[in-house]
Order: sequence, then structure tokens, then C-alpha cells
Amino acid sequence: MGQIVLKSATLPGLDGNNRVVDVLIEGNRFSRIAESGIEVPAGAEVVDCSGFAIFPAFYNGHTHAAMSLLRGYADDMPLQKWLQEYIWPFEAKLTGADIEIACRLAFLEMIKSGTVFFADMYWHRERTIKVVEEMGIRAAVGVTFAELLMTPEQIEDNFNFLAAHTGESERVCLAVAPHSVYTVGEALLKRCADFARAEKFLVHTHLSETLKELEDCERQYGCSPVRLLERAGMLDSNLAAAHCVHFSDDDMKAFVDSGATAVLNPNSNLKLASGIPPIDRLLRAGAKVALGTDGDSSNNNLDMHEEMKLAALLAKVQGGAETLPAHDALKMATVNSARAYGLLDAGEIREGFLADCLLVNLNNERMVPRHNLVSNWVYAADSSCIDSVICNGKFVMRGRHVDGDEEIIREAEACAKRLAAN
Amino acid sequence: MGQIVLKSATLPGLDGNNRVVDVLIEGNRFSRIAESGIEVPAGAEVVDCSGFAIFPAFYNGHTHAAMSLLRGYADDMPLQKWLQEYIWPFEAKLTGADIEIACRLAFLEMIKSGTVFFADMYWHRERTIKVVEEMGIRAAVGVTFAELLMTPEQIEDNFNFLAAHTGESERVCLAVAPHSVYTVGEALLKRCADFARAEKFLVHTHLSETLKELEDCERQYGCSPVRLLERAGMLDSNLAAAHCVHFSDDDMKAFVDSGATAVLNPNSNLKLASGIPPIDRLLRAGAKVALGTDGDSSNNNLDMHEEMKLAALLAKVQGGAETLPAHDALKMATVNSARAYGLLDAGEIREGFLADCLLVNLNNERMVPRHNLVSNWVYAADSSCIDSVICNGKFVMRGRHVDGDEEIIREAEACAKRLAAN
Repeated sequence: MGQIVLKSATLPGLDGNNRVVDVLIEGNRFSRIAESGIEVPAGAEVVDCSGFAIFPAFYNGHTHAAMSLLRGYADDMPLQKWLQEYIWPFEAKLTGADIEIACRLAFLEMIKSGTVFFADMYWHRERTIKVVEEMGIRAAVGVTFAELLMTPEQIEDNFNFLAAHTGESERVCLAVAPHSVYTVGEALLKRCADFARAEKFLVHTHLSETLKELEDCERQYGCSPVRLLERAGMLDSNLAAAHCVHFSDDDMKAFVDSGATAVLNPNSNLKLASGIPPIDRLLRAGAKVALGTDGDSSNNNLDMHEEMKLAALLAKVQGGAETLPAHDALKMATVNSARAYGLLDAGEIREGFLADCLLVNLNNERMVPRHNLVSNWVYAADSSCIDSVICNGKFVMRGRHVDGDEEIIREAEACAKRLAAN
Repeated sequence: MGQIVLKSATLPGLDGNNRVVDVLIEGNRFSRIAESGIEVPAGAEVVDCSGFAIFPAFYNGHTHAAMSLLRGYADDMPLQKWLQEYIWPFEAKLTGADIEIACRLAFLEMIKSGTVFFADMYWHRERTIKVVEEMGIRAAVGVTFAELLMTPEQIEDNFNFLAAHTGESERVCLAVAPHSVYTVGEALLKRCADFARAEKFLVHTHLSETLKELEDCERQYGCSPVRLLERAGMLDSNLAAAHCVHFSDDDMKAFVDSGATAVLNPNSNLKLASGIPPIDRLLRAGAKVALGTDGDSSNNNLDMHEEMKLAALLAKVQGGAETLPAHDALKMATVNSARAYGLLDAGEIREGFLADCLLVNLNNERMVPRHNLVSNWVYAADSSCIDSVICNGKFVMRGRHVDGDEEIIREAEACAKRLAAN
């Protein structure tokens, strides 16, 4: 069992009172955190953290990792044109091998911006799982249902894959991922919901992202997407619903009562002109709120720090300057996202919790002066402040270096160039 | 005269077609840009730029640099409490020596995030000018008028300082900076406007930032802040007006007709809950629009890249996904801000223009794949992608290193700690 002592690290307090602590990591857990100094176990690696603050790593509650190859392929155009003329034709060419290359680029990007977990919704889940195992991070890999694009055999294959818990491991779990109310019919939504409840899976879907989705749902089903999920038995505490941009008061009440989590993606919603997520209303209504980045093609990065700051800023302009203070925005991007996917002992620097964390450089100009480290981290920092990233008790980035980064970038560039040319 | 050849640099095209060029810098200008290779003059320094894209550096159209020491000192509270209980008492303690320390931290932060110019509005202008000269960047230093806080002698001193063009140089100019319609009376606004026109100065002010400002102005003067500036003769093409959050249609028309520039600060406006700047309306009305960060105490950083991306995103959610495409957002943060302060030959990589630019790492994961470098730069990148910064023909950052950075950070931290304790 690996042992690491993070020596003399600054543990930021919400009130601006920070503690200097030693943190003992044993295996994949924080086993001891103490101010008085920890006796170093024989064989443990000691890391001098006197110039660093420890923050929880980020948990990305909604993305499409393999869309990294589409970053910048099409921007600044209406959604339908973007999808039909650019995104879908490009995606149609992606092979399993391409997906692996795309995932490596995405995970490199996640690690360098401090993310150790992502909830994914895409195709070729085995390839995604393989690269997650390879690169040392965590994932809730969605097994994606999009009825319009799948054969009945593929749908059965999905359920079999899930029932066998294929590819699940210490760092990987599966989620039932019906894409949305506009790509999955009511009967299959119901089957997914029943299956997930019986087999104890989390459910990950898109919900109320655009006004068009609401209008189409009203026309087809005579109700809102939220009420349709409720009808299908999917609106439950095991649901992580991405976007949640357009909620009526009735939707809001039903959603909050269900205990589902809203996974907001403000960068993507603004960039695609879908709307501004109602963060202040969600918070006032008592909703569980987490954050995600959506894919690289609509953000155009996987930087949870950007998402966290933008969420805090939008909440304030909606509800006043006191809304969503820095420490609550940080929770949205860390512990709230972890919990939405069943990681109940992750997202905080706490004894017994999973050893996922960031070492943030206290001598970066954005972290100075140090009146309030949580404020500096949320409002002033960017990825350049992150020195190292630990996931599951192991360094996945150290001194801003990630193993294999040059090859990952070279392969991704070559692959994307080939796909764009053909 | 110093000569630098930037060899084999990628010059991104707006259409995704990039050119690989050599760039000759002679003195403080780009003197030649050519694809075929430039003959290296004897004694010139040759820099291999084969892994880098050249982008224009950022020009920050509105900030209060010395407020860097207040970063994170007070957040997440209403404006009046923030100002009266935290910001003003802290500021009252700042000496000239503290201002120098604060400016060094601010300029370090600017340089590391790619900014080479800022338009400032604060006190102790001589100290600010001194540190600008020291650190190699550019500034339009506002000579600040805030009638409520100044003696008649201080006001006369301001005009004398301006009339003598005190401290102006190749990289420093002065601007007439009446703080706002709520801190400067109509007579002094008029005197500032007349003086600026006669002496050919730019005018830099806060305008229509909050609804309270509008209500108070209406009560006191019977008109909007925009109409009050017009009445005082200040609404003119030499005006750079920060914020511009609340414009009626009548304000909009008067503002656009005047040829003034709106310098938007969306991060600050959202964080202080002042409102969302009407970017789409300004653009549709044909306004000149530039960007600024406001001070570190309300943003909480000086990162123009964040401002650029946020402006693009807000514009889209206001006006549709086609609004403010990447290359136009980039212009707002570069050439438009430069022009607002009279730098007519800056903000573009162009022969004869001032040699200000960034070397952006093409092998950073956020810049890959390279379908469209302008899109990657605006939507996906952050400061970690910037390798080097050139201002006025000289490197002010190289390989992410800025001379003296450790001492700047140590002094700033010590100074802020002392001020907060007393």
C-alpha cells in the first residue's frame, strides 16, 4: 500500500483562517490530517508542501470527453446548423481507435485543469473505460441510449452491458444514460428508470436544455420534460440531470421534491445561446446543484474552474452579490458533483475520504495577497496555479507535468487533421 | 536599436487558414512580416517560434491597478457594505510606497496573463507611472477627479499635472479621469471636458454602472448619466466610458452618435451584481466596444482573456450563437481597447505597428486540435497557454518567467498583511 505524507500544506478555511497541516495518504484514502506533525511511516514518500494549499480536486458532472477532437471545428452558429452540418458528419467518422486518442487528449486537459472525475455520455464506452484506467482518473461512464440512432439489438446490448457491470472497477462505475426526452421515447425512458432503480445505477441525462426541447415535448407529450421524466419514473434521487436551463415553477417544485441533482453547464449554455441556467432560483428552491463542462465542442474546454467562477458570477447577477459565495461555488464543482454520482466519500480534504486533491501554488501572483485563499482560488486563480494533482492516492500531475503529454497531443492533432480532411 | 526575428511563427487567420511567417521587430515596431523567410540582420536575436502562434497582446481598457492588494479582502456582499466597511477603510491606509508594491503585483499579473497596456484610474499617479516605466509595459494613467474626496487645491494640481504632461513618455500617456457623475459635479465635468478637448487628452470615466447611479442622477439632474455627460460636453469620441451596463434606448443612441467607446467589464458587473452589460444591443446599435477587467477587488483578477471569453458568451446568450464571433471578441480585448486610448497603431500583428504580442504554445492541450486557432485561443485557452510576452519590442515575459517575480510576490504579501492587521 503506497503511503505519501504531504508535509506542511496549507489547508484553507472558509473563514479565511487557514491551518498548516501534514496529510497522510495511505492507499487511496486520506488517513490522517493533523496540525502537530505526523510521524512519517517507514517507506512513505514525503512531499514538502510548504508553498502549497491543498484544495479538493474537481468532479466534472457532465461531459462528452471524446468530443475533444471537435474543439473549434465549428463555432458561432445556430445549434441546428452546428449539429447537422458539422458535428454529426464529423462524429460519424470516429472509430474506436479515434475515441481512445480523443479521450487521452480530454483526460490530459482535465488533469491539467485539476479534474479527477468526469461523468461521460458518449459512444464506444469500452474505449473510454480503457483510457480512464490507463490515465489514473475516475469516471462514471454513461451507457448511452439514443433510440433514434440505435437498433433494438444495440439497446439490448446496453442493458446487458450494464447488468454485467462490464468494466467497473475501483475508479470506474457505469451510469444509465438515456440521452434526452427528444431522443428516447417514453417507454424506453420508463424501462431505463426501472432498470436503474432495480440494479442500483445512477441515471445521467440531458434535461430542459433549450426552449425548442420544451416546445417539442409539450407538443408530443402534453407536458414539460421534467413532468415527462416524472411520468416515466425517472425523476428520482438517483438522477443527475445536465443543463436544467428552462424550469417553470412547477418543474422546479417537482425536481426539488424528487431529490435529483441539477448538473449545470453555464459555459455551454451561454455559448450555444440556450439560456442562462436559473442558479439563484435553483438554490432558493433548495435544489441539489452540481457543475459540469459539457464537451469541448461547445465550451470549448473542460476546465471546471471556469465553470465554477461563471456559476458564482451568474448566481450573483441573478440574486444579488451575496448569492453563491466562493465556498459554496467550490462545493458545486467538487463534493456536490461527486455525490451526484454516488461518490459519498469524495470531494473534501477529510480523514477517510478518497485521496483526490490539488496542490495549488501559494506563490502564484493570483493567489496573493492571501486575505482569503478560498476567494482567491474561486475568483482569481486559473489552471496555471495548479502545481500537482492527486487522484486515488497517486500523483497524476506533478509540477505541471503529466506523463505522455507530448505523444497524446501529437496523436490527437494528427487524428483530428485526418478526420477533418476526409 | 534592438532587432529580433521571430522565426517560423504561426500567424492565425480568421478563416482558420494560418500562415507560417518570420517577423522582424526593429526597435519598438514590427518592421517586416513575410512567409518566404526574412534575411536576419547582423546582430539581431533570432527566436525559434516553430511551436508558437503569434497573437496580439491584450489592452486592458479599465482597471484600478493598485487595488491588487485588496484581492479577496471582501467578497460576496452588497456594494455599499463592501465599499464602506472594507474597501474604503483599507484604501485609506495605502501610502505611496504601498501603491508601488501594489502596482508591481498588478503588472506581474497582467504580464503573466498577456496584457501589455492598461487604462488606470486611481491615486498616487506618479507612483503608478514609475512602476510602469520600471516593468516595461504601457499605460494610460488617469489623473483622477473625485470632487467629494478632494480639496480645491488637489483639483487644481490635477489640471497642472495634466497641462505639463507630467511623466508622459514612449509608453505612458495621461488621461483626464473624472471618476463618475456621482462623485464629480456638473461644473467640474464640464471643465474636465473642455480641458481635455483643448489639450487633446482622452477622457476616462465610469458610466451607468448601477441602477442606483441612474436613479440618483435622475433625482439630482433630471436626466440619465449619459445625458448628463452630453450636457457637460463630455460625450464625445475622446471618451472611454467604463461599464455602460444600464443604457436606455435614448442613452444608446446618444452614446453611439457621439463616437465614444464603451469599455465593458462583465466579470466585475456580474460579481458585484450590477447587471449584465448589453453587449448585443451595443453591437447592434453600432457602438465602439472595448474590454477591461476593473480592479482585482471586484473581479478578482486582471485577466483579459477571461473578460474576452465572458463577453463572447454573454453576447451569444443575448443575441444568438452567431453574435460576437471569436475574432470580434479578440478585437474587443486588443485593437478596440488600444484605439479607445489613442493607440492607433497597436493591437494587431502588422507591419509598422507597435511590437506588442504574445507567443502562444501550440502544443498546449487547449490549443489542440488546431481546426481554428482563433477559436481555440478565445474559447479554450487560458493564461497557461501563453509562453512569452513582448511589449514595445522587448520581452517582458519569456518561457513564463518575469524578472523579479519572487520579490514582487513576497513584498505584496507582506504589505497586504501589514495593512490588513492595522
